[in-house]
Amino acid sequence: MTLAPAHVAGVGMIRFGRYPADVTLEDMAVRAARAAVDDAGTDLSVIDGLYVGHVFGGPVAGQRVAAQLGLDGRPVSNHENYCASGASAVREAWVALAAGLHDVALVIGVEKMTDRVSGGVRPDPGDLDAAVGYVMAAGHAMSARRYMADHGATREQIAAVAVKNHAHSVHNPWAQYQKPIDLPTVLNARPIAEPLGLLDCSPISDGAAAVLLVSPAGLRRLGIDGPTPRVLGVGLVSGSVQTGLGDPNAEDVSRRAGEQAWELSGVDPADLDLVEMHDCFTIAEIVRMEGLGLVPRGQGAAWTAAGETALGGRLPVNPSGGLLSRGHPVGATGAAQVCELTWQLRGSAGGRQVEGAQVGLAYCKGGTVNGTDGGSVTTVVMTR
Amino acid sequence: MTLAPAHVAGVGMIRFGRYPADVTLEDMAVRAARAAVDDAGTDLSVIDGLYVGHVFGGPVAGQRVAAQLGLDGRPVSNHENYCASGASAVREAWVALAAGLHDVALVIGVEKMTDRVSGGVRPDPGDLDAAVGYVMAAGHAMSARRYMADHGATREQIAAVAVKNHAHSVHNPWAQYQKPIDLPTVLNARPIAEPLGLLDCSPISDGAAAVLLVSPAGLRRLGIDGPTPRVLGVGLVSGSVQTGLGDPNAEDVSRRAGEQAWELSGVDPADLDLVEMHDCFTIAEIVRMEGLGLVPRGQGAAWTAAGETALGGRLPVNPSGGLLSRGHPVGATGAAQVCELTWQLRGSAGGRQVEGAQVGLAYCKGGTVNGTDGGSVTTVVMTR
Repeated sequence: MTLAPAHVAGVGMIRFGRYPADVTLEDMAVRAARAAVDDAGTDLSVIDGLYVGHVFGGPVAGQRVAAQLGLDGRPVSNHENYCASGASAVREAWVALAAGLHDVALVIGVEKMTDRVSGGVRPDPGDLDAAVGYVMAAGHAMSARRYMADHGATREQIAAVAVKNHAHSVHNPWAQYQKPIDLPTVLNARPIAEPLGLLDCSPISDGAAAVLLVSPAGLRRLGIDGPTPRVLGVGLVSGSVQTGLGDPNAEDVSRRAGEQAWELSGVDPADLDLVEMHDCFTIAEIVRMEGLGLVPRGQGAAWTAAGETALGGRLPVNPSGGLLSRGHPVGATGAAQVCELTWQLRGSAGGRQVEGAQVGLAYCKGGTVNGTDGGSVTTVVMTR
Repeated sequence: MTLAPAHVAGVGMIRFGRYPADVTLEDMAVRAARAAVDDAGTDLSVIDGLYVGHVFGGPVAGQRVAAQLGLDGRPVSNHENYCASGASAVREAWVALAAGLHDVALVIGVEKMTDRVSGGVRPDPGDLDAAVGYVMAAGHAMSARRYMADHGATREQIAAVAVKNHAHSVHNPWAQYQKPIDLPTVLNARPIAEPLGLLDCSPISDGAAAVLLVSPAGLRRLGIDGPTPRVLGVGLVSGSVQTGLGDPNAEDVSRRAGEQAWELSGVDPADLDLVEMHDCFTIAEIVRMEGLGLVPRGQGAAWTAAGETALGGRLPVNPSGGLLSRGHPVGATGAAQVCELTWQLRGSAGGRQVEGAQVGLAYCKGGTVNGTDGGSVTTVVMTR
């Protein structure tokens, strides 16, 4: 089952980071939206509908953004799939274009976290896992311990994910962190849930990213006749509820997400030139790449330490810096991944460019897919 | 611009009302979903994707519901457009079927309000209108005052909306209230925002409603070859931000929503046999029907008092009892309206049946479309 691809006419984001309280969610979203429209060489009037992904924005946040853009009147919808919210908004826009409902859709992912969150995202009251201490960081720490035990991986190899991603985002002007860090710095950071320390965890961030998706008729409306990167497919699978003593690194949901992504996009995974991967924790990048079948099972940590997933390596992962270093304003992340893929596929990513990038994948995971809280994985496959 | 219609293979809901704290959002959603699938004569395995509308359910509520249905793994998305959330989920499912992404989509609208809300929905901290006292009830009270002044309507005529809708839901086993009320009871109820009293306001409710929407291929998969009601189109427009001293009853957003609905569905509004209207307050039913152009401007109150919008009248409005009497679990309302239209178009609505109903409209409004908070209007046009 494949649908018509969506063309990316323009992308824009604001630098992720910590913004003062007087910079609102709406302000950030408006800046990203204007940047995407400018990037497409057009103006806001071309937009048929808005798809806004966020988690903590409150009711009708998208409509408030639309009003500030002067786009009140247009269809506006809000999409929440936890950390996959921005990608879920991309998905609904892609479907709407394929159905012929719209020709020009603006997707915005946005989150203002620093006003609301301190020290970590608070679990929902009904989250039984969290109530017994199985919060995100604890789950990923267990994943890391099990991975080390099963595969003989070392703490240093896992920490290498953070070193790599911070090295990449030295070249990313949109990243929250733009300085390299070395391995001892990661190893000696404050422990969060051992073996993971502070620099194994993605930060609390504010940010916004926007993508102007258009149909072929939309391209004509915008007067674009050159090549544009295309979204071939956007997958969405929800997580299996696993109980008992299953392997936390089985990543069945990633395997299924990958199978769906190749089917929706028609792309052979062997053709991928780069991946933007949801590295909310260092170990997560490793096990998810393995779950997708893009790295052999049990070898992801060694691959990372050997530079195979770095720029210039066999399959570069997170040239943007990923969630660990670009930052992770949860609802914005999926849209920011599409911005990065677009820049990479255009060959305009500067010092973090993956040479000759033709095909890319973005992956987000929202919620806890192995626990009782529920969650989803999104995939976006793009080509030049 | 029209898309392919979606067939309603089955609908189900639970009785709206107040449920104890140990009945969870997930419990309610599961009951409604099973009822819809049973109504279609099939089982849950046929479902390709879930679209879940809610406002207060918290992150990934839809995924929690899917897990309890044993549908983890399927694509699940959460849709929030305030009181239009359920209808927004219907819209995204309709688009996905039209695009060919899915053949069988389950829409669930659900809300557990009584655990979270007491005395009225708390406005968002950033809602400047509410901060100065312009809360929902106050806005509708001003609308009523202005309507009475402009059109010579009486308090009694406005109160007649509540009498009518409560009379209708005497025949609705799914309604929160199933007893008739008389005019003096409405007039003498506790004042909320004068001239409106308690019975001019929709209640705080818990509830869930589900709709199984299918493509022609989905009908074949389910073995359905008889006639099924069809969703011809689902509109979505966001509200204009009006500032200053504009007429609160101008209802420009309803006019635009109507124009979009007739265009998307290809239906002539003169052919409508019934309307499920978002009567969050008595006056709202009147001014929205007028805004849509279905009742002449300034005559809605008089029409109501004369029985023109009652069962047996010129254009029956809210045979279900509407939000005022069926109840208003906000994210569930739009899906419940589609349930009601389906029963009406099948001719199976019992004592509240609109005789010979062929074409129906459902309308929701979410958020405040005249203020700074933003909002949306959805329309669903269905035919037999």
